[in-house]
Amino acid sequence: MKQSELFTKTLREAPADEQSYNARALIQGGFINKEMAGVYDFLPLGLRVLNKIIAIIREEINGIGGQETFLASLQNPELWKKTNRWDDAVYDVWFKTKLKNDTELGLATTHEEPLTNLLRRHISSYKDLPKSIYHFQTKFRNETRAKSGLMRLREFIMKDAYSFHADEEDLNDYYEKMKAAYTNIFKRAGLGHLTYLTFASGGTFSKYSHEFQALTSAGEDIIYICEKCRVALNREIIEDVQHKCTECGNDKLKEEKAVEVGNIFKLKTKYSRPLGLVFMDEEGVSKDVVMGCYGIGPQRLMGTVVETLHDEKGIIWPEAIAPFRAHLLSLNKNDEAKKIYDDLSAAGVEVLFDDRELTAGEKFADADLIGIPYRIVVSEKSIKAGGVEVKKRNEKEAKIVETKDIVAVLKQ
Amino acid sequence: MKQSELFTKTLREAPADEQSYNARALIQGGFINKEMAGVYDFLPLGLRVLNKIIAIIREEINGIGGQETFLASLQNPELWKKTNRWDDAVYDVWFKTKLKNDTELGLATTHEEPLTNLLRRHISSYKDLPKSIYHFQTKFRNETRAKSGLMRLREFIMKDAYSFHADEEDLNDYYEKMKAAYTNIFKRAGLGHLTYLTFASGGTFSKYSHEFQALTSAGEDIIYICEKCRVALNREIIEDVQHKCTECGNDKLKEEKAVEVGNIFKLKTKYSRPLGLVFMDEEGVSKDVVMGCYGIGPQRLMGTVVETLHDEKGIIWPEAIAPFRAHLLSLNKNDEAKKIYDDLSAAGVEVLFDDRELTAGEKFADADLIGIPYRIVVSEKSIKAGGVEVKKRNEKEAKIVETKDIVAVLKQ
Repeated sequence: MKQSELFTKTLREAPADEQSYNARALIQGGFINKEMAGVYDFLPLGLRVLNKIIAIIREEINGIGGQETFLASLQNPELWKKTNRWDDAVYDVWFKTKLKNDTELGLATTHEEPLTNLLRRHISSYKDLPKSIYHFQTKFRNETRAKSGLMRLREFIMKDAYSFHADEEDLNDYYEKMKAAYTNIFKRAGLGHLTYLTFASGGTFSKYSHEFQALTSAGEDIIYICEKCRVALNREIIEDVQHKCTECGNDKLKEEKAVEVGNIFKLKTKYSRPLGLVFMDEEGVSKDVVMGCYGIGPQRLMGTVVETLHDEKGIIWPEAIAPFRAHLLSLNKNDEAKKIYDDLSAAGVEVLFDDRELTAGEKFADADLIGIPYRIVVSEKSIKAGGVEVKKRNEKEAKIVETKDIVAVLKQ
Repeated sequence: MKQSELFTKTLREAPADEQSYNARALIQGGFINKEMAGVYDFLPLGLRVLNKIIAIIREEINGIGGQETFLASLQNPELWKKTNRWDDAVYDVWFKTKLKNDTELGLATTHEEPLTNLLRRHISSYKDLPKSIYHFQTKFRNETRAKSGLMRLREFIMKDAYSFHADEEDLNDYYEKMKAAYTNIFKRAGLGHLTYLTFASGGTFSKYSHEFQALTSAGEDIIYICEKCRVALNREIIEDVQHKCTECGNDKLKEEKAVEVGNIFKLKTKYSRPLGLVFMDEEGVSKDVVMGCYGIGPQRLMGTVVETLHDEKGIIWPEAIAPFRAHLLSLNKNDEAKKIYDDLSAAGVEVLFDDRELTAGEKFADADLIGIPYRIVVSEKSIKAGGVEVKKRNEKEAKIVETKDIVAVLKQ
């Protein structure tokens, strides 16, 4: 896309009213726009990143048999009363609203209740199990404080997956598959080196649940890392396990700040029982369906990437989720650059083409701020040197590439 | 996908609590699930249709320079007070809610206000114009009655596009491009033959706006068709034009029931003025930005297709938006059918493979209900006849195709 046509402009200064780095950088770069604390719009550059994260998650969840749906936001209180999650005194993140006839409704904060209820029509026998169902849908959460940019939102998309099983053994097997899929997701999104499988409290029924925590000084959580096992423990359980690694007994744990980028949880019959989701087993005995749930917030993941992968000049996007693969800067050489833009586009390379009438300094500053992985400069100087200048965002040195080779160099 | 693995089941009977054909058929076929009047979940088959409609719209709008965004649902009342659309007495479709500190918020019913306001940061000069910006985002509308299935929802996705221009001439040019894009969308989605460009009231500033109305007895609107010009007039303006075609003066207009599947509207400065969206023209004079807005609801389009394209046995999906291209029915021949399924899948043909343990009658009934364009039957009989039996959903006669030719026959 031509940058002269992109409707967003970068800002000279980061917005003063944002405390978090991720919101400051993303607003300054034109990725997002703030509507109010915890509520942001996604602009073309930001939506491209978000859609790439969503595509990675979708591919991994489809790969382990997930079936995609799209459940409604508006919620009937009756369902949530059955699981004791309607009363604000018990579950205090609801945004509530009303129909014209004064019937109270809620905006979904999560979707265990409606999906469990819906499956009562579709699961009746052990032959209908197991099933894995997910969607990407907006969640609304009435957070008291929302000041961490994309890391704590009042309105955000969540990929929430739910699995349904005949027994705990089958749930346990699927849970391991989901753990592996989550590990792939964080690795593919560029956060693998910072993300730790973290033991958390399992609630009433399970010994542990698991969070995926990414190390960042902007995180609201504290975790305790065992470097040997590459796992961590969260603050909830650290006392219970006497400050020792649950895997190897190591007591030299490292305390770090982190943010939860995903979680997986064995719900067992917590929702199936009150909502009446049962099945007939092979002997014709009615049993509660055994469930698991698995969440990732693509926007929080995006915010975490920005918090952890940047330098003083701006964002450094991992290749897999960058808004474009290449940022082509024309320094008064639009005709020559246009030819390269056309060649790269024809080869399927996603290029942002800075054809604007700006100084070299302004273009370089914007390229660093926006953080596209490959910067290609076409200038008098590069042409004299035999082609174009290519520099990776996370490297210092540029190199000259002959114009005829640029497609081969950039093509994945 | 194997139908034995699909989590949804068809129902023997259509739900008794639905008045509209589209909701009855879509629920019976397992495409959607009703949460409450006007609020539905999209299940795997339904989401596939919805995503295909969205993809067609996206392609057409990108084709005329649309830049995709994703604006938030939660709305700040201050913005809407400036355009006099916050007060329920004036604009009565809001769902309103509150932050914990009692600040009132709304759920977006449309997005003129936030987008116009956002563009104040990005448009300052005539050089920044024109721009065309859109998103697919949920709208919430507190409808008093919602009993037409997907044709009048309280929660629905809308593709709303907004264009921004330096003057009316430029708006008029772009408006014609959008008209052409809309015509393509309805044609590609299979409704071209039923959809009429319909003249509607233009409000204060324009002579006419345009609706795209699709003929259906389930529609809530009445339109007056001129068969010569292939346009229509809506009820609002029929008196003003003295029951004559605005194009050719024909007074033999045909009255029909229809549903509005899209609309395009010249807003001019209706929102830019109160919200202060201005630009400097070439002479350095500050002027109001001139706007247009353009809406389509993909779910309403889906509901309209079901209303208009079905027979007594079920839905007849147009090929471009069908959940799958082929429905492969194995009548006790799963091994032979599996081979065909693998071949078609490898060739990129989307196939729903009915490998369930059901009678032929049950499988045929489900295939007709679900309405996939090509039905392929593998049975003792078809194998004896030399291959598989292929029947199009909208044709009566099946024909035998040699197994080796099936990929060639089905590939688009």
